[in-house]
Amino acid sequence: MTTTITFTPNALLSEIADIGRDPVRGGYSRPVFSPPEQKLNQWFIEKAASLGLDVEQDRNGILWAWWDTPSKERTNAIGTGSHLDSVPGGGNFDGPLGVASALSAVAALKNEGFEPSRPIAILVFPEEEGSRFGLACLSSRLATGAATPEKVRTLTDPEGITYAEAAEAAGFDHSSIGADKEGLARLAQFVELHIEQGKGLIDLDKPVAIAGTILGHGRWHARITGTGDHAGTTRMQDRHDPMLVGAHIISAVREEGQSVKQARATVGRFEVTPGGTNVIASQVDLWIDVRHRDDETTKAIVERITQRAQQLAEAEGCKIRIDEESFSPTVHFDSKLREAMKSVLASAPVLDTGAGHDAGILSTHIPTGMLFVRNPTGTSHSPAEFAEAEDVDTGALRLADVLRHLSL
Amino acid sequence: MTTTITFTPNALLSEIADIGRDPVRGGYSRPVFSPPEQKLNQWFIEKAASLGLDVEQDRNGILWAWWDTPSKERTNAIGTGSHLDSVPGGGNFDGPLGVASALSAVAALKNEGFEPSRPIAILVFPEEEGSRFGLACLSSRLATGAATPEKVRTLTDPEGITYAEAAEAAGFDHSSIGADKEGLARLAQFVELHIEQGKGLIDLDKPVAIAGTILGHGRWHARITGTGDHAGTTRMQDRHDPMLVGAHIISAVREEGQSVKQARATVGRFEVTPGGTNVIASQVDLWIDVRHRDDETTKAIVERITQRAQQLAEAEGCKIRIDEESFSPTVHFDSKLREAMKSVLASAPVLDTGAGHDAGILSTHIPTGMLFVRNPTGTSHSPAEFAEAEDVDTGALRLADVLRHLSL
Repeated sequence: MTTTITFTPNALLSEIADIGRDPVRGGYSRPVFSPPEQKLNQWFIEKAASLGLDVEQDRNGILWAWWDTPSKERTNAIGTGSHLDSVPGGGNFDGPLGVASALSAVAALKNEGFEPSRPIAILVFPEEEGSRFGLACLSSRLATGAATPEKVRTLTDPEGITYAEAAEAAGFDHSSIGADKEGLARLAQFVELHIEQGKGLIDLDKPVAIAGTILGHGRWHARITGTGDHAGTTRMQDRHDPMLVGAHIISAVREEGQSVKQARATVGRFEVTPGGTNVIASQVDLWIDVRHRDDETTKAIVERITQRAQQLAEAEGCKIRIDEESFSPTVHFDSKLREAMKSVLASAPVLDTGAGHDAGILSTHIPTGMLFVRNPTGTSHSPAEFAEAEDVDTGALRLADVLRHLSL
Repeated sequence: MTTTITFTPNALLSEIADIGRDPVRGGYSRPVFSPPEQKLNQWFIEKAASLGLDVEQDRNGILWAWWDTPSKERTNAIGTGSHLDSVPGGGNFDGPLGVASALSAVAALKNEGFEPSRPIAILVFPEEEGSRFGLACLSSRLATGAATPEKVRTLTDPEGITYAEAAEAAGFDHSSIGADKEGLARLAQFVELHIEQGKGLIDLDKPVAIAGTILGHGRWHARITGTGDHAGTTRMQDRHDPMLVGAHIISAVREEGQSVKQARATVGRFEVTPGGTNVIASQVDLWIDVRHRDDETTKAIVERITQRAQQLAEAEGCKIRIDEESFSPTVHFDSKLREAMKSVLASAPVLDTGAGHDAGILSTHIPTGMLFVRNPTGTSHSPAEFAEAEDVDTGALRLADVLRHLSL
């Protein structure tokens, strides 16, 4: 069967290529509730409407664009989609590629005259990256009940603004955020397409892969409190400098990550109070990201880091507390759905990933799967993230194949 | 002689106690050209005017409040004063104590009917801390020619705003900033009163000290560039993480500072790009503050840190550059002026300090000296900085004694 795409994913990505550019970091900064993110949502709503899809926003801010069947019953549906928010200084593929490919796949199916036997819905999940409020996949966690509304409302961004305040400022009614089993129950299956965040497809010389598992991962926040003082007048032996403790923790995190095969351990966020050149810091906040396929191993790594951090803080005369901000067990995507995808994408390899996704969070409630599109740099969460235009087209066509097959 | 102060320094400090409070860090954040700093300037101008002083702002933004002699000739004057800006989250004494004490001392001298034989000027220096544009004692460096207008205009604050842009936004004409020998030549001597930034006076059980030297010190900016990537998908062995290099530099700075007697070496500012929890950083900027009484020793410490930093960066596959942002040689305050101060403050000890001051910068052009007021916590650049009300009064009275003696 030949499918012609007129609503190409490359063209769609071009349309949003100027939204949320970050002049300082390079790439894009599109945090939830920010003007760029709201502009992207508006763009999605218009695009979906132009395809004849019926768009709604649910209680958790997730956008649903429905391609209804004649019966108009929104049950037993096939979901697809991804997110439009980004990490600070991210690329233009992580998230938007899945949304653009979903729009494009639906356009292609409509174009070929296909009539799905069940509704197809394109979903856009806000705050997938957790880059504003520190909790990745925030909206899918709310919908599945993995995060409570009470907790989410009080999450703060780096400026100290709470989720509730940011929502209000953006005109989003957060009064009924929370578990949404009825909403999710409308989906029979969910397939998310995403840029690959690694070089698996490059090594295998293939454009598209099917996901196997998502490494379990979590985030821990360490707050180290010392004694702020003058950098010129305080003798070295009199210091209780949280900067030193933070520095040693960064080293410990690297060492513990390296000591376990296939583990990942990272400090990517490190904030100093007050942060003056001639001031010994009084407080350091840092965040530790740890991932491994085996959840017990992840927790053991964090336990060792925590013990070392406590010793390091004590040695410097500082206080420390370490709190778990989120933990997501390893996701094994639905095997029946994977087999169904394999039956139409015979040449696609199965690859694991170290990155979290809304499809992973939803997998506790709905059979979910993912497709990955080749990324020659292997890099993501960076402006260096890339996909060849041809692979972008191929990804959308393969997603169309999957949606067609699942809704035959 | 009994001097009664009606314009007390404690009352003056109370008047500004609510300006520029920092709700996040605690204490005060009063950066140059910010609304709090401008409010403080306005307050100073009004206070000085109420004492009958004639206030002018010079080309470099320095405020001069003149107590003229009948001849109105502004030469051979005695200068005093300090600064009103603060480090982020600083205390209320570092800077304002010297300004309030100067106002109070002039009020006391006027009150007792004293008529100075030469003009007395109270000076307020903007951006003493260098906490916004990274160059401490910015206005006195401009006035003495230690910093060029071209360099200063392009200095940027943490948000990327240049000095020139910030000046324009605050309505300050920066077109004629720069060396001001004529302006400085009006002063025969300059005496700055400052809160002590250490426990010397506590140990000696005295309220006020005379300054001996200021430790030579400098600031170096290190920019480490690595490869930003996804924290979950990038294998540990594939990383080029500037965060690790930055962490090791923090440790190296501590070690090198500890290895030399009486040295101080600090990293108090550390900024991560992009700074997401699930993102391997692409860039780290950090600032190294090093001080020692012997300038060659300071440079040798920085040289060792630089060599270690380059090796650390290379080992991680990162790039690094380290630039000197400022360097101030050890200041030996004017010995004749010190003897003159000793003659009226017989019981005051002579103490060295590790902190830089505008009086130190001016010492290359004018005979300068300083008075320190006891700080029971020994801490400064922190909300914990403190002075007893009685010592604050005593400091202003002793400053009045010095001004009277110098202008008899």
